[in-house]
Amino acid sequence: MSQSVFAQRIQALRAAMQQRQVHACIIPSSDPHLSEYLPERWQGRQWLSGFDGSAGTLLVSAEFAGLWTDSRYWEQAANDLRGSGIELMRAGEAGVPGPAQWLAGHLARGQRVSVDGQVLALQTHRQWQAALAEAGILLVSDVDVLDDIWTPRPAFPQGTVFEHMPPFACRSRAENLAAVRAAMAGHKADWHWLSSLDDIAWLFNLRGNDVPYNPVFLAYALIGAESARLFVAPEKMNEDLLGRLLDDGVTVEPYDGAIGALACLPEGQALLLDPARSTVGTFAAAAFVEVVEAINPSQLLKSRKNAAEADHVRRTMEHDGAALCEFFAWFEAAQGQGRITEITIDEQITAARGKQPHFVTPSFGTIAAFQANGAMPHYHATPESHAVIEGDGLLLIDSGGQYLGGTTDITRVVPVGQVSEAQKRDYTAVLKGMIALSLAVFPRGTAAPLLDTIARMPIWQTGADYGHGTGHGVGYFMNVHEGPQSIAYRAVVTPHMAMEPGMITSNEPGLYRPGQWGIRIENLVLAVPAAETEFGEFLKFETLTLCPIDTRCIEPALLTEGERAWLNGYHEQVRQRLLSRVQGRAKEWLLERTRPI
Amino acid sequence: MSQSVFAQRIQALRAAMQQRQVHACIIPSSDPHLSEYLPERWQGRQWLSGFDGSAGTLLVSAEFAGLWTDSRYWEQAANDLRGSGIELMRAGEAGVPGPAQWLAGHLARGQRVSVDGQVLALQTHRQWQAALAEAGILLVSDVDVLDDIWTPRPAFPQGTVFEHMPPFACRSRAENLAAVRAAMAGHKADWHWLSSLDDIAWLFNLRGNDVPYNPVFLAYALIGAESARLFVAPEKMNEDLLGRLLDDGVTVEPYDGAIGALACLPEGQALLLDPARSTVGTFAAAAFVEVVEAINPSQLLKSRKNAAEADHVRRTMEHDGAALCEFFAWFEAAQGQGRITEITIDEQITAARGKQPHFVTPSFGTIAAFQANGAMPHYHATPESHAVIEGDGLLLIDSGGQYLGGTTDITRVVPVGQVSEAQKRDYTAVLKGMIALSLAVFPRGTAAPLLDTIARMPIWQTGADYGHGTGHGVGYFMNVHEGPQSIAYRAVVTPHMAMEPGMITSNEPGLYRPGQWGIRIENLVLAVPAAETEFGEFLKFETLTLCPIDTRCIEPALLTEGERAWLNGYHEQVRQRLLSRVQGRAKEWLLERTRPI
Repeated sequence: MSQSVFAQRIQALRAAMQQRQVHACIIPSSDPHLSEYLPERWQGRQWLSGFDGSAGTLLVSAEFAGLWTDSRYWEQAANDLRGSGIELMRAGEAGVPGPAQWLAGHLARGQRVSVDGQVLALQTHRQWQAALAEAGILLVSDVDVLDDIWTPRPAFPQGTVFEHMPPFACRSRAENLAAVRAAMAGHKADWHWLSSLDDIAWLFNLRGNDVPYNPVFLAYALIGAESARLFVAPEKMNEDLLGRLLDDGVTVEPYDGAIGALACLPEGQALLLDPARSTVGTFAAAAFVEVVEAINPSQLLKSRKNAAEADHVRRTMEHDGAALCEFFAWFEAAQGQGRITEITIDEQITAARGKQPHFVTPSFGTIAAFQANGAMPHYHATPESHAVIEGDGLLLIDSGGQYLGGTTDITRVVPVGQVSEAQKRDYTAVLKGMIALSLAVFPRGTAAPLLDTIARMPIWQTGADYGHGTGHGVGYFMNVHEGPQSIAYRAVVTPHMAMEPGMITSNEPGLYRPGQWGIRIENLVLAVPAAETEFGEFLKFETLTLCPIDTRCIEPALLTEGERAWLNGYHEQVRQRLLSRVQGRAKEWLLERTRPI
Repeated sequence: MSQSVFAQRIQALRAAMQQRQVHACIIPSSDPHLSEYLPERWQGRQWLSGFDGSAGTLLVSAEFAGLWTDSRYWEQAANDLRGSGIELMRAGEAGVPGPAQWLAGHLARGQRVSVDGQVLALQTHRQWQAALAEAGILLVSDVDVLDDIWTPRPAFPQGTVFEHMPPFACRSRAENLAAVRAAMAGHKADWHWLSSLDDIAWLFNLRGNDVPYNPVFLAYALIGAESARLFVAPEKMNEDLLGRLLDDGVTVEPYDGAIGALACLPEGQALLLDPARSTVGTFAAAAFVEVVEAINPSQLLKSRKNAAEADHVRRTMEHDGAALCEFFAWFEAAQGQGRITEITIDEQITAARGKQPHFVTPSFGTIAAFQANGAMPHYHATPESHAVIEGDGLLLIDSGGQYLGGTTDITRVVPVGQVSEAQKRDYTAVLKGMIALSLAVFPRGTAAPLLDTIARMPIWQTGADYGHGTGHGVGYFMNVHEGPQSIAYRAVVTPHMAMEPGMITSNEPGLYRPGQWGIRIENLVLAVPAAETEFGEFLKFETLTLCPIDTRCIEPALLTEGERAWLNGYHEQVRQRLLSRVQGRAKEWLLERTRPI
């Protein structure tokens, strides 16, 4: 697609803006459910700008078009936006205003800015509105200018909804509903509104495939003390499932009836609603009830995996690890035997996982990034643009799977040809950071962002840093990114970020040298009790991921005795738990790559 | 003093409350300048309750009296309050409401709570007012019920004000005023009001002795683009000093004219005022101007010591270290030779510092705490209640000095008799935490609270923790506690907490076993450049404090090679820099206690 297509679309948007008497238009990267992965129907920012990173905000005025995105995507966005006339705004960089600040500085008092309120987070709307109101600018959220020009706009996704069944589903639907209702009672709420798809899928033990990678489906839910109404396109479920839901007191109603149901709630009753997980359009519909704002109870409930879920994840990690052994053994054997590209890597790794029991889909788009591509933390190879794996360098592979018994996410870096001393120093620094967090002990309830420093320290020591957080929560056959915990020191600390037993979090420090190479080593870890002393309860991490960490990239002199002991102990465990699950070439590879150093 | 005296005073307060038609009265621990150390005149909370810790809030209603204080003081307050009828409220403990929350839960709608607005921080007033307003309770801040019953109330302190002169004063008064006026211009402020005593003393290169330990004097200041008005009791300065101030454009006016001057500012002009360092009484007086709220520019300016100041502090640390050698040599020789108490320790350490050049006063009340007393982090021995140093145990000594060339603050723990294995394990864990922070490298501007985890990690690893922050800013011949940085993970992170070059901060992890012993090891550290790389500027800490860390309490097997190297390197430096400054017994002690392990 020629890049000038995007310049034309921006022009068309400006014409529509003029007709609507709007002086600037913001297109966020979001859908009515504030999902991480957007159905095509709501990928308007990408359709307009050509930038396909997962995070970005487009702002178009009569004279200016700018795309805000964070440091993960600066390199990619600079490429994608070339020729579009859209300026890259480096969000988070000193001196770069946010979209609302930019508008406050450039628009005149009395001018109008539009944004589609159906897809705008309530919290974001409040921030923007406050900033714009101060500058006398009006924020209009009931106009969707993009819809005027986007023809044909992609339809709503129509994936099938299915049930997450025992033994993999370890809590019953009735149990989940009871837990959420107990939390509602704690908030003195008569009703609870849900629009976040992972919360809804978790609550009802249902899964879908309306978006790539996340096993969710488009829906809303409205929970009362006695009723549970699930709003979903009825053709997505079969009669049998509808019946089983009804047995649990869940009535299924059409998706497009949800907002109307919200507006019809009895006046003056209390509605629990999560302002971070609801759009301003939803909030406007809840005008007649008293809104109680709080985090969705399901966010907290599902983040703490129970013992049975943790056991399934341990077994799933063995399957995933076996698939990775097969993949890496193929990769080492295939080098020099033919053309391997970043695309081939993705195909092979997904094929290997596909042979494992209970595998459903990848949990996100595989990142296979060779050398300089690895320096873009969220690089994604495309058929049009990808590297061939040849010569000397580091190959970074970040991948994961959705299994009925858990969700995986792992990053490894492997050497191709010769590894330089500088690469080994960087790799070892990242490994030290990953080990430091793996070994951490901390009081139960410590705010997860505070743990970030632990992983970063050895990397800071070398005069380097990385622009992303160290860890994100991971769901159970659910979204690979979930809250509420986040090991990211830039996060604003809230009480919900307390690290609690049962939480599964990634441990993934990195180090990226633009134009050269990128390193990230990632395991998933489970928070488990460490000790109970006169000082209270302490937690530690059990490493769940089972896959060798390539020792050929390590500079052993830089490891302490404790770090070496952790690494050898980890490899011992990986070997023991995977050995019976691999054969032939994969077995040889496992034995070779888990040798102690 | 019999404890029932306090019960009587509370009764007298209740009678005065009834006359004033007030249903509850809050007595915070603060003065009109929101100082850390209060002149006796404002020690009403202590006068009423008998609890003499530095932090506490007393609340008295008709039926209830409660004292809120943080974990540092729980043990002490439980003792002090016995027999007073005042309940200890453990601030920060789960389930313990704050004073405002308590009032909201116990008072009826329409009832009145009084607090003296002249000593109440604006920020605290706002929080309380918001919480009480929601419960329909009125917060009255123009009534001082305590003053009705406190006779005779101590007078205003009358210490002399003197000038901090070169070479120790390394920035001129004109330079300081110019820097503050530049910041005012940045805020578009016509005026700037100062009521915090350290800011005022710093700005004018003046020092005083109105409160113990902090070299400050009661004053307010009002700065304009062309004028600088200093409100201070005129008898505190001599003619010569008044003349020199006038030469720099500073006019001195009576202390009690300050609030009136504020009220007389030209209507509609902009006044810069720090809401964390101004009382609600001040704010009420500034009713006719437009208030611009921001941190006092002097807070940021004085926190970053310049090169000349840092050099003076390095020299001062040599003097302080020599005094400590003399003290510790005496202590070791004196054991078994006669009765040594916690009080003797204080006398001896202050006497040793007193012989050093440019010493002025202690920088805070010496904490000499043997065994179980050491488990109270802010224990203070009194003539009535103190321990004799005998038998086996750990002696914790936290002390510091004000010198013309800098402020010191150091904690060491030394063995008395036999040290147990458990004590050694605790001591070594604390030392590891202290070393970890000493060795840290981090991006310039990292929020200081995030560094707290670094020192805490080795202590957490043993299943222990400590209830205080790891580090506080330290002034330059100024308050031993200053902002804006704070290495305390419970602090709410603000942009002003960024760690910047030139900041002096304490590094003082601890471990306290109630009823048994307490350990804290504290050095002062200076933030200095570590590296400038493609990832930006990095900082590290230069350790300023020079005094052996007793190696007899260490369990060497628990130290890593890197930790041992740090300790031996530190002792090497201590020996080199102090050797020429000590003689005889002190010299022998220095040589013995700096031997490598």
